[in-house]
Amino acid sequence: MRQIDVNSDLGEGFGPYRIAPDAELMPLITSANIACGGHAGDPEVMCETIALAMENSVRIGAHVGFPDRIGFGRRQIPMTHRELELMTVTQVGALQAVARLRGMTLSHFNFHGALGNLSFSDAEVAKTVLRAVKALDPTLTFIGLPDTEATRAADAIGLPVIRSFLADRGYSAPGRLAPRGSDGALISDPAAVRERVAETLATGRLRLTTGRTVAIEVDSVLVHSDTPNALTLAHAIRAGIVDSGCSIAPFAK
Amino acid sequence: MRQIDVNSDLGEGFGPYRIAPDAELMPLITSANIACGGHAGDPEVMCETIALAMENSVRIGAHVGFPDRIGFGRRQIPMTHRELELMTVTQVGALQAVARLRGMTLSHFNFHGALGNLSFSDAEVAKTVLRAVKALDPTLTFIGLPDTEATRAADAIGLPVIRSFLADRGYSAPGRLAPRGSDGALISDPAAVRERVAETLATGRLRLTTGRTVAIEVDSVLVHSDTPNALTLAHAIRAGIVDSGCSIAPFAK
Amino acid sequence: MRQIDVNSDLGEGFGPYRIAPDAELMPLITSANIACGGHAGDPEVMCETIALAMENSVRIGAHVGFPDRIGFGRRQIPMTHRELELMTVTQVGALQAVARLRGMTLSHFNFHGALGNLSFSDAEVAKTVLRAVKALDPTLTFIGLPDTEATRAADAIGLPVIRSFLADRGYSAPGRLAPRGSDGALISDPAAVRERVAETLATGRLRLTTGRTVAIEVDSVLVHSDTPNALTLAHAIRAGIVDSGCSIAPFAK
Amino acid sequence: MRQIDVNSDLGEGFGPYRIAPDAELMPLITSANIACGGHAGDPEVMCETIALAMENSVRIGAHVGFPDRIGFGRRQIPMTHRELELMTVTQVGALQAVARLRGMTLSHFNFHGALGNLSFSDAEVAKTVLRAVKALDPTLTFIGLPDTEATRAADAIGLPVIRSFLADRGYSAPGRLAPRGSDGALISDPAAVRERVAETLATGRLRLTTGRTVAIEVDSVLVHSDTPNALTLAHAIRAGIVDSGCSIAPFAK
Repeated sequence: MRQIDVNSDLGEGFGPYRIAPDAELMPLITSANIACGGHAGDPEVMCETIALAMENSVRIGAHVGFPDRIGFGRRQIPMTHRELELMTVTQVGALQAVARLRGMTLSHFNFHGALGNLSFSDAEVAKTVLRAVKALDPTLTFIGLPDTEATRAADAIGLPVIRSFLADRGYSAPGRLAPRGSDGALISDPAAVRERVAETLATGRLRLTTGRTVAIEVDSVLVHSDTPNALTLAHAIRAGIVDSGCSIAPFAK
Repeated sequence: MRQIDVNSDLGEGFGPYRIAPDAELMPLITSANIACGGHAGDPEVMCETIALAMENSVRIGAHVGFPDRIGFGRRQIPMTHRELELMTVTQVGALQAVARLRGMTLSHFNFHGALGNLSFSDAEVAKTVLRAVKALDPTLTFIGLPDTEATRAADAIGLPVIRSFLADRGYSAPGRLAPRGSDGALISDPAAVRERVAETLATGRLRLTTGRTVAIEVDSVLVHSDTPNALTLAHAIRAGIVDSGCSIAPFAK
Repeated sequence: MRQIDVNSDLGEGFGPYRIAPDAELMPLITSANIACGGHAGDPEVMCETIALAMENSVRIGAHVGFPDRIGFGRRQIPMTHRELELMTVTQVGALQAVARLRGMTLSHFNFHGALGNLSFSDAEVAKTVLRAVKALDPTLTFIGLPDTEATRAADAIGLPVIRSFLADRGYSAPGRLAPRGSDGALISDPAAVRERVAETLATGRLRLTTGRTVAIEVDSVLVHSDTPNALTLAHAIRAGIVDSGCSIAPFAK
Repeated sequence: MRQIDVNSDLGEGFGPYRIAPDAELMPLITSANIACGGHAGDPEVMCETIALAMENSVRIGAHVGFPDRIGFGRRQIPMTHRELELMTVTQVGALQAVARLRGMTLSHFNFHGALGNLSFSDAEVAKTVLRAVKALDPTLTFIGLPDTEATRAADAIGLPVIRSFLADRGYSAPGRLAPRGSDGALISDPAAVRERVAETLATGRLRLTTGRTVAIEVDSVLVHSDTPNALTLAHAIRAGIVDSGCSIAPFAK
């Protein structure tokens, strides 16, 4: 039976602030991408998120973002390639250290917000940040969007890759999300999300916003943690996976 | 021939700012304690300091401080023990990651400013932060002030310890620096520093500000990087080590 | 008919984070104490909170706190008196500027968390921060806890003072809140809060946790914005004011 | 006799860091543009810079920059127009407050680094940030580069404008500095700077890097504070002003 991972970006609080229902989401996923103090997160939040993941036997990974708390990593901060690689390894290194303190190791990583988008479209940036992670720990799996420069670069340098599907977002082309605000960019109806997950997994084809379908590889489905109905969508995604005849399980290492 | 290490706190710049003549000091020392982004330092400064250390075959270690850039780690920030251990491992982890990116590993660590002082006098804090480092990497050597709670705790939990001598500071008692501003608190004359290093190493006894001498173990001598005549004092310390009949070399691992 | 003000600490979000139901609370209060970017708040949050206040004809004031986002101003940061006065005026000045951009002026100010507590008990700190505000704008009213060093200092230097009552907190003595965790420190039952407001206003006497009653002057009642049932308590406080025979209105300038 | 102002960007330290010889430069200038805690500066540095200006009877103004300490305001941070105006007024407001605490008022303002460049080329940004300052205090004079969108916008909205000449920088066209690294972009020889100041002031014409001369209005000459030979260049600029037959004096309000 084919196994599908469920991943989510968690640990995005800071100081007194929390932004998503992490404790409720954690039992519904298999891999947690944890903010590392760049766009969000702090040592305490990292630690509390790792503890939640441990209680729920969820894989932990680093969610790297631009060091821009006020902009939540959604703004592209101009950085040299050297700054990008240093930013990447210091964030992953900080989370690794908290994990080790709790007797855990990281299994994966991915990129947040504006850094994620940049890594999708800019092959040089993608290579820089992926090589930096590989130099730090070559066993880490990259969770990425298929058909982007990021997953191509990870394949090219020999990092294990898990292909993630954003079930509640429209795609205008392979590896390309429809711009927010455009028709079909957001799929908020849980029933539609469930059906989309089931269909995509069962057929191996993704329906674009144009109506056309294209081949897509999917190893994991993303649960957006900070949408208003995150818990409902998480249940819908899980149901869709089961509908497709697959089972829910952490990705193979 | 007995070997004495020379250590210094470097990499204390931030963004556009630099605070000490790191490039000139590096050839004069054997162990660099590098700021990790808490009280000072940032990924770029860490990387540039590690590169300087590599060029000069200098050991690199983590210099952990309160996360308080504007106060430069000199103010005691109220923190729980859990916050202290998380602060410690995330700082060490970030520097480890930059080191690994450059193919290096850390050899040691120590504590800065108000955190250092707290670890000297508070046995519980000392145990917390030292245990945190040990959980992260039990091979790291602690560079500490002899006859303080910090070195006692490191001995108790089995971390390797290098005993550091602050040659340009007066001691009011074993393990206790004379308060800044008090008589004999600062020894700024290079000839006096040289003689103090030579005498202390040759006799194994430290002259206190009271005039009394007490036994002291010394494995390394500290060069303060941010005093106005840091380079002159570094040369004086090196000369004092040679005067005492010892040689200058990195501490044994 | 005697008029009682209702004040609340709002605008305590930051970047993507919000912490209290400001939009729902604003119609229930008459004076908003707005975070100024020290313990919380940022230019965008300040502006959005001022806009909410304008829509609801609510007075705006500065809520000054230690510059410590991660600790939310609840930790006492060691500062000199000069640093305290500069911290105070730069925070008030920033909020004044946003207000002016929107055609508004500030009417009042108060102190948050650890800075508030310090100003209650330390007469020198109280004088320093109150004099700093007076130098900036002598027309600003101080909202303070009666029978503390802060209100005594404000009276002494001639700042207008509004005496605020914390209806959901127990007092162990005049001007002294019962320590969190102690018996009667927190009054969470809305009916009890309502009755306590009504009784205190009607009698001019405050029942301490010891059972004894003492005279208290009250010009305003505080609504804690970040308790789980803030809106219910706000309604209870308003009802208690009406029960006492007073009316709800902004304080007189 | 025609009077020429000499302005410089000062107060760019932070916490323990200082970056330019402010105390030596202050007696050589007539207007200080003081960092406001965005790209650099903090309450203590603002206060110490204002004190230096007072001792030397130098005009004080706000030097507004992107809130990006690690990048020193040299990186363009993506911001909405609303964020730009709020950033501008909170920075000016903070400096105004420190000035008022010391019994002073601001006389002027200008923009730093990437924000300055953006205001030179983007008319909408220029209008937004200049209108924001005008709403805060319409008496503040704008120190700007002539023949840019920024000075055009200031003229259009009726702010007083002082036209500043960057004597040690090449211009490729009116209002356009030659890109760093290109031929003639930097004029580091003090004699050349002196002659350039004298010639430009005497003739009212600026020699471009192309060799062509164009008309230029100059009310003030900028001293770059963070070049290695800032003091020498300051003396050269002053000598050039005198050579041209003008006198050195603060701009007229």
